[in-house]
Amino acid sequence: MTYCVAMHVDRGLIFMSDTRTNAGIDNVSTFRKMQTWQVPNERLITVMTAGNLATTQAVLSLLDERSKAPEDRCPNLLEAPSMFQVARFVGNTLRDVIQGNLSGGKAKSESTFDATLIVGGQIKGGEPRLFLVYPEGNFIEASKDTPFFQIGEMKYGRPILVRAYDSAMSFEDAVKLMLVSFNSTVKANLSVGLPFDLQLYESNSFEVLYEKRIEESDPYYSEISEGWGNALSSALRTLPDFTF
Amino acid sequence: MTYCVAMHVDRGLIFMSDTRTNAGIDNVSTFRKMQTWQVPNERLITVMTAGNLATTQAVLSLLDERSKAPEDRCPNLLEAPSMFQVARFVGNTLRDVIQGNLSGGKAKSESTFDATLIVGGQIKGGEPRLFLVYPEGNFIEASKDTPFFQIGEMKYGRPILVRAYDSAMSFEDAVKLMLVSFNSTVKANLSVGLPFDLQLYESNSFEVLYEKRIEESDPYYSEISEGWGNALSSALRTLPDFTF
Repeated sequence: MTYCVAMHVDRGLIFMSDTRTNAGIDNVSTFRKMQTWQVPNERLITVMTAGNLATTQAVLSLLDERSKAPEDRCPNLLEAPSMFQVARFVGNTLRDVIQGNLSGGKAKSESTFDATLIVGGQIKGGEPRLFLVYPEGNFIEASKDTPFFQIGEMKYGRPILVRAYDSAMSFEDAVKLMLVSFNSTVKANLSVGLPFDLQLYESNSFEVLYEKRIEESDPYYSEISEGWGNALSSALRTLPDFTF
Repeated sequence: MTYCVAMHVDRGLIFMSDTRTNAGIDNVSTFRKMQTWQVPNERLITVMTAGNLATTQAVLSLLDERSKAPEDRCPNLLEAPSMFQVARFVGNTLRDVIQGNLSGGKAKSESTFDATLIVGGQIKGGEPRLFLVYPEGNFIEASKDTPFFQIGEMKYGRPILVRAYDSAMSFEDAVKLMLVSFNSTVKANLSVGLPFDLQLYESNSFEVLYEKRIEESDPYYSEISEGWGNALSSALRTLPDFTF
């Protein structure tokens, strides 16, 4: 499985992804699930992936190759005029890869090769935008009502995001919130694991503000992981007592 | 969907279930998912159900009918010598109902008629025990390592249970914890809904200590629902800040 979250706050975008992939529980590896394309002072595009690893690697490779060969007139990430067109291009690439795999005909079910992507970023002249791309190639965009997207094993870490998200929050608070959400997920699902990849993007900067790989041994992550149990118990104590 | 939790604490057992059932999102009803059989001073058995409503109703009706006709020499809930035998009997009944439905042959998949049950209680001479019964009729028992069971839509409400459960907690604290877990689930999945049924059982009492149907308008539930968002935000603030 996988867990990735992208969040839109007033200050910009935050991306976080785990790195565990597995085919069965006895075949576990670490793969990066976040990739970024940049044109200085003009655009930044980050893609996170969940689903079949062969599919997601093929999609990322195709996106990358096409962006390096603009002369072949295919649409590509570095030339698309808007984030909407970027999302369309990524969606079409994803759909083509899945359909190509299915045409082999040996898939046990239609969902075998499925993958879901988050695409976020900003192109000069537009606002920072965030999209969730489905295996069928269609997509939805984050809005004020739904300002963050999760893909993969999203249920365990969702309640804290829903409750604590605030568009005015600082990058520091948003990272803390996301780490708590990831920590709840890691504790519940073995197929989500450290290290995590973190990226911060500040609106209208068109470059990565901050990037980090958060390892299991990261002291801040350990503090969050150990402190959150106590913090939750204290939070429960602040609620009024049940009487019967 | 459904959400039910049963918890074993030092003082006894706590059961909570939602009441929403649905066949599609436009066919929503309220059904009780918790049923109790008692023999004063001798035994108390509570069953909670998740899954296909026709299956779970058939199982509960069969259990009930057999307990009222002890002369037919079938094993039954009111005569089984131990909670282990109760769980076996419930598991066999569940498996028979599912297999009977499948033999109709029109099911789209094997899981169409599936249901999962929680069986808990105490019979004189034994300790209070808690079992999770699978559609195949087999079952597992709660232990000190895994002192609570959830069935149905369990992921959203699990992290808080994992973090805050303590076997020494009072009934009051346990109910508060469960309500927070249910509230997180209700906020995330439309197919889990109020009212909730709550039952408290004190060890060696062989009778229900307390029972309540918690309605949407319940003032204590409203306090929990409204207070938990703030409590979580405060809990986050107590964690050390991320810096970059």
